[in-house]
Amino acid sequence: MKLSSWSVLLVSILGECDITLALWPIPRSLKTGTSLVKLSPVFEIQTSGISNVPADLVAAIARTKTHLATDKLERLVVGRGSVDSAALKHAPSLTRLTLGLTPSAGKKVNSIMTETTKDIALREESYSLSVPANGGFASITASTSLGLLRGLQTFEQLFYDDGAGVTYAFQAPVAITDDKPAYPYRGFMLDTARNFFSVADIKRTLDAMSVVKMSVFHWHVVDSQSFPLTVPGFPELSQKGAYSSSEVYSTADVQDIVTYAGQRGIDVLLEIDTPGHTAVISTSHPEHIACAQATPWENFANEPPAGQLRLASPATANFTASLLTAIARTLPSTLFSTGGDELNVNCYTQDAQTQAELEASGQTLEEALNAFTQTSHNALKAIGKTLVVWEEMALAHNVTLSNSTVIMVWISSEDAAAVAARGLRLVHSPSDYFYLDCGGGEWIGNDPGANSWCDPFKSWQKAYTFDPLANLSASQSSLVLGGQQLLWTEQSGPQNLDTIAWPRAAASAEIFWTGSTLPDGTAANVVEALPRLNDIRYRMVQRGINAINLQPQWCALRNGQCNLDS
Amino acid sequence: MKLSSWSVLLVSILGECDITLALWPIPRSLKTGTSLVKLSPVFEIQTSGISNVPADLVAAIARTKTHLATDKLERLVVGRGSVDSAALKHAPSLTRLTLGLTPSAGKKVNSIMTETTKDIALREESYSLSVPANGGFASITASTSLGLLRGLQTFEQLFYDDGAGVTYAFQAPVAITDDKPAYPYRGFMLDTARNFFSVADIKRTLDAMSVVKMSVFHWHVVDSQSFPLTVPGFPELSQKGAYSSSEVYSTADVQDIVTYAGQRGIDVLLEIDTPGHTAVISTSHPEHIACAQATPWENFANEPPAGQLRLASPATANFTASLLTAIARTLPSTLFSTGGDELNVNCYTQDAQTQAELEASGQTLEEALNAFTQTSHNALKAIGKTLVVWEEMALAHNVTLSNSTVIMVWISSEDAAAVAARGLRLVHSPSDYFYLDCGGGEWIGNDPGANSWCDPFKSWQKAYTFDPLANLSASQSSLVLGGQQLLWTEQSGPQNLDTIAWPRAAASAEIFWTGSTLPDGTAANVVEALPRLNDIRYRMVQRGINAINLQPQWCALRNGQCNLDS
Repeated sequence: MKLSSWSVLLVSILGECDITLALWPIPRSLKTGTSLVKLSPVFEIQTSGISNVPADLVAAIARTKTHLATDKLERLVVGRGSVDSAALKHAPSLTRLTLGLTPSAGKKVNSIMTETTKDIALREESYSLSVPANGGFASITASTSLGLLRGLQTFEQLFYDDGAGVTYAFQAPVAITDDKPAYPYRGFMLDTARNFFSVADIKRTLDAMSVVKMSVFHWHVVDSQSFPLTVPGFPELSQKGAYSSSEVYSTADVQDIVTYAGQRGIDVLLEIDTPGHTAVISTSHPEHIACAQATPWENFANEPPAGQLRLASPATANFTASLLTAIARTLPSTLFSTGGDELNVNCYTQDAQTQAELEASGQTLEEALNAFTQTSHNALKAIGKTLVVWEEMALAHNVTLSNSTVIMVWISSEDAAAVAARGLRLVHSPSDYFYLDCGGGEWIGNDPGANSWCDPFKSWQKAYTFDPLANLSASQSSLVLGGQQLLWTEQSGPQNLDTIAWPRAAASAEIFWTGSTLPDGTAANVVEALPRLNDIRYRMVQRGINAINLQPQWCALRNGQCNLDS
Repeated sequence: MKLSSWSVLLVSILGECDITLALWPIPRSLKTGTSLVKLSPVFEIQTSGISNVPADLVAAIARTKTHLATDKLERLVVGRGSVDSAALKHAPSLTRLTLGLTPSAGKKVNSIMTETTKDIALREESYSLSVPANGGFASITASTSLGLLRGLQTFEQLFYDDGAGVTYAFQAPVAITDDKPAYPYRGFMLDTARNFFSVADIKRTLDAMSVVKMSVFHWHVVDSQSFPLTVPGFPELSQKGAYSSSEVYSTADVQDIVTYAGQRGIDVLLEIDTPGHTAVISTSHPEHIACAQATPWENFANEPPAGQLRLASPATANFTASLLTAIARTLPSTLFSTGGDELNVNCYTQDAQTQAELEASGQTLEEALNAFTQTSHNALKAIGKTLVVWEEMALAHNVTLSNSTVIMVWISSEDAAAVAARGLRLVHSPSDYFYLDCGGGEWIGNDPGANSWCDPFKSWQKAYTFDPLANLSASQSSLVLGGQQLLWTEQSGPQNLDTIAWPRAAASAEIFWTGSTLPDGTAANVVEALPRLNDIRYRMVQRGINAINLQPQWCALRNGQCNLDS
């Protein structure tokens, strides 16, 4: 036998041994077999013993039935779905999936939306799932509607199409016991201010998030460049500050997005960034903005245009608190972000009004910032909100933050330890792992040699190797709520929303659901993860999400054969 | 006046002074005025004095009329199209665009397709264009249908929409005299083998190329991973080698693409890469492939799977020449590429058959490579083709190349000088400027720390600063046919084709049309280019091409205000 023939044989054997169930995020407990089970033509999904099935659970069940019928994903193996067609002729059929409550649940079930928007520390997403090898009934049990949704999201990923109309699972029996997330906050952040995204774009993003059980959509809705949000009582902000009248989220749009998300197990964390990143407010309220569009902008802000809320002005503090509560009270989430990043001191030093107000009150700028922040935070707490802020509020400024405050760590992953040392809860959003916009070149107009400030590109592999507990003590681990990948949109818009985000942003979805240990007890690693991520990418494409290829299709169909010999 | 008010005023003045005509590529000669001219409701495009108007020129005229009606691009200024609405009420109307021939043209006109597929050194793309400020008739004159097409492509870029249904130019009179490209080869390369692209994807790419007057679609159609091309007489290659039966370009598809391109002034340079990058041929012709899928692949090839044509085998040389001529003879272009990159010597050293054949013939491997190449090249020359090869054929191997051969310089921009020193013509395709795939992370499955081999990302600015004549003598400059940006698709597919390519790939379209000097005599530079590239990006989006944002919309509407103070 010649060398080349030996090699082909060896590769074939290796390939056949290496077929894994392509769940993403992979459940924390998982047992699988090797049997094929197909969906019966009369397959149905029923609830059992639930007296008041919430409407959004009914809708979730309908979506799962639709996905089972329309995903049409063929397995990523040479020959695709056809390799199973012959064996499927004699495979047992699954006639039903039953959704039931665990004994602890009681009989009254809240809607998915209600469970999703609970205090983030109190959400219950656990579920168990069983698919028998001999056909009959599959089951999902959970103590909440949200847990049942998580089970449905897993169930959908078990099924493939053989290319001839048969929908089947290929590793029955499947037993998943008490799968639940390692962290409650598994997010995705979208900036809709640098460039605008339609409601349809956001819903498609929520669809993608839902595929991988993400739980929070962090909506960085406004910024210095545009104000596309209709705030009740403050219509002038978007009328003057949006890019155009058609690039505005109406009150109905916001409710539509929040509801769409909540029904899919996704809480919407809205952010109105303050006191920086607010230049656009000067278009309707110039009295509240210092250094509005001052030039050269780089002396006054991290990005053009310059402009910050006059934090030393009691009128501005009250305006800000009124604005934030006006939008926050319309949102079901308990979380709300007041931002707080990249404050520019020179803007205030050069602003005559701010200087006069500081002198009149006898406050330092830091004292004024603290008072300004308390005004907003107290108003938001009074309507039941838990505050979320960027890390500078905790680390760079002397701002009083209540223990419940959630800190977004973004400047560097290394800053998490300092936040934890202050005893504050945190969400990992580090630019060195999770910023999706890095590595795309420079957008500043006259800096042609530069690449992006956070070069290089943060690959999915880089994101996947993130350790949520790095440099934290065991007692600090409970301060970590989770993490998120983030899309700042200086160089993005509807055109590349999907392609820059997916499947990359699924990396953190697994990190923060599964944690660092795979169900077989081994450590999570990119080599094991790649075939599963390839699979979820192809499934996303089937659902209309423009997730990009991670490899040539030749590699995606041949797990391991595009690895280096190691 | 406070500082902030001064700043706003200053910015407003600067902004108003800095509005440029957003043509891309900018004509080499251009004079403009400041008058508005709108299209009359009865506006028409007519030919004048052309006895036999080719069908594809008729179609080009119809496309221009469609684009004028459907682009609906509003100017990138604050207020968008509405800023011109009042003045447009009294603006003169253009009732006609007349296309005419220059005296040198004669009365018989070839089709655009015929002109586009001529010997690349003989193509005539020159045109002159006039839009009067007082309305009436605009005109385009040229000596060929291809020149008239180039004029139409420019004409379309002169017009904007005011948001209320008026289509108008804002810098009339416009006078362009004898605009013609600095280089005939202005290309875009697409790899359809690592991942597959539909005919619709390719046509949309040709549409985008057409917007910026690109002239060559370099179609890297097959590679080691898949063979999606139906070759007359060799149906087994795609039957066995395509990813699936639906991922194949039929003979009709190829003709459809070639015709669609030719009608838009784009020549199709097809490449069948040989003797390397041919592993997939082993699926139907194992007898012709050495080290097929040998492992570890990195010992036998630059990418998996390994496999190269048995270049020392006369049977394989004849098979290859037959295959190449079978497809080449169906194509109108005079250009055809036999590839020739990344030959792996170890593959042949380890192949018993190759070693036996070398011993029998008494040839070295290099001598065998030369003989193999001559067999293919002679067969292609016999059917009128001009050969195109990757740079290794000229620089790394001792292969005889005729003077007409065109060398693709890809490994480094610095290699152009060595090719020119050999007296060979070249197309700039340097990985250090023009590779669109760089900077997206690693696709090899178990190399998580790595980024792409050609990091960093090649920004549009980097591409735009390319100097086609760097390190060449004045006498060597005529060897430069042009250049192209290239998309290798290990991590790309239909999902991100537009977003990874556009508007970035337009950078070289201008470099190789306009050259290094702007029409006002100043040197081309990214600061001047950015507002025009923003504009062409927004126009591409209006035409259904998912070109990405280069900046926040705030910046795109305010030329210069997102520059650093310098």
